[in-house]
Amino acid sequence: MTYCVGILLEQGMVFASDSRTHAGVDNIASFCKMTVLERPGDRVIVLLSSGNLAGTQAVLSLLKQRGLVEDDGPTVWNAATLFDVAGLVADAMRDIDRRDGPYLTDSGGFNASFILGGQINGEPMRLFRIYSEGNFIEADIETTPYFQTGEAKYGKPIIDRVITQTTSLEDSAKCVLVSFDSTMRSNLSVGMPIDLICYRRDSLRIEMRRRFAEGDSYFTALSNQWREGVREVFSRLPEPKLST
Amino acid sequence: MTYCVGILLEQGMVFASDSRTHAGVDNIASFCKMTVLERPGDRVIVLLSSGNLAGTQAVLSLLKQRGLVEDDGPTVWNAATLFDVAGLVADAMRDIDRRDGPYLTDSGGFNASFILGGQINGEPMRLFRIYSEGNFIEADIETTPYFQTGEAKYGKPIIDRVITQTTSLEDSAKCVLVSFDSTMRSNLSVGMPIDLICYRRDSLRIEMRRRFAEGDSYFTALSNQWREGVREVFSRLPEPKLST
Repeated sequence: MTYCVGILLEQGMVFASDSRTHAGVDNIASFCKMTVLERPGDRVIVLLSSGNLAGTQAVLSLLKQRGLVEDDGPTVWNAATLFDVAGLVADAMRDIDRRDGPYLTDSGGFNASFILGGQINGEPMRLFRIYSEGNFIEADIETTPYFQTGEAKYGKPIIDRVITQTTSLEDSAKCVLVSFDSTMRSNLSVGMPIDLICYRRDSLRIEMRRRFAEGDSYFTALSNQWREGVREVFSRLPEPKLST
Repeated sequence: MTYCVGILLEQGMVFASDSRTHAGVDNIASFCKMTVLERPGDRVIVLLSSGNLAGTQAVLSLLKQRGLVEDDGPTVWNAATLFDVAGLVADAMRDIDRRDGPYLTDSGGFNASFILGGQINGEPMRLFRIYSEGNFIEADIETTPYFQTGEAKYGKPIIDRVITQTTSLEDSAKCVLVSFDSTMRSNLSVGMPIDLICYRRDSLRIEMRRRFAEGDSYFTALSNQWREGVREVFSRLPEPKLST
């Protein structure tokens, strides 16, 4: 399984993904699910992948390969808007599905989905969720400032409690890491390392990208302080009356 | 959707269920999903229902109706063990499935599952989860002291953080209510009132049963204090370094 989050804030954007992939419980591996396409001063595009690894890798390879041939029509490097990039991702998904889908009917068919976000010079920041069919929705900073994919439910309550459009980048990054901590505690299929990117609005370059591996001192401190803090808050809550 | 929890502790057991049922978003209603079969001094049996309401109600009605005819073989009132009661529930489920299942193929088939727990005189407390196929698993107080059904993921992290076999009944009830609060905040398909039962080991009677309706003063205070406390803990967590 997978857990990915993308958040759209006034100050910027936060992206995070776990690294666990598995084909059955006896075949577990680590793959980075975060892809960054960056040309400083022009565009920052971040893709977070969910679903079958063969499918997501093929889509990303095709997207990058097509980006090398600029004369041949729109690519991720010359698209004028992130909406157009979402369309290019969908095109690649449908091409891979056409190629591989018929061979995958017994195993559930082609299955890949993406969170796409970033900024292209001349546009505001944008955040999309692209479904496995290739259609997509765009986040609205005022009402739905974030998208999650994969094992999203365990870590949703803390995001719902903390994130609004005015939350700082620092607090949002912290919140996302707490959300991953809760998810990994309750679900084995999401695992470290966690890849995290914070993008500052209009900077048009990635200033902060970090990988939190197992035993990372900051993540461990965060996890321990959160656990102790939550337990302490819990212990201070009023007791229910258990007599009738 | 639904959210139900049953917990097995050294001190006793805690059961809780929400009340929301819906057939589409424009047909939302409240039904109690908690059924208690109690003969003080002899047995306390609690059933929490998930799934299609027509299915769960039919199973429960059949179970109760069969319990009125004691000469006719084992019933929920004369079964010597909770394992046997789980078998009776499964029998009723399969009978309803045989009767209604063929008419439900277009809507996904017969679909009902239960958390079953309690104590019968002469036995320790026991807790089961009965799947829609009628097979079931039993909780193990040392390794898996609780079962959830329905929208279980949002509220799982807090249970994982707090509940062990030695947790008190009071703390477990409180934890379950916080778990419902997180679930209802992140998912519209789970709704109040919440039904809660605490059973004290070997008491063989229900001493505490409460219904928390919308606006309940204890639940509101719990929810507010939890929200504020969690935010405070969050704000005290160390900030990640966002420079590269």
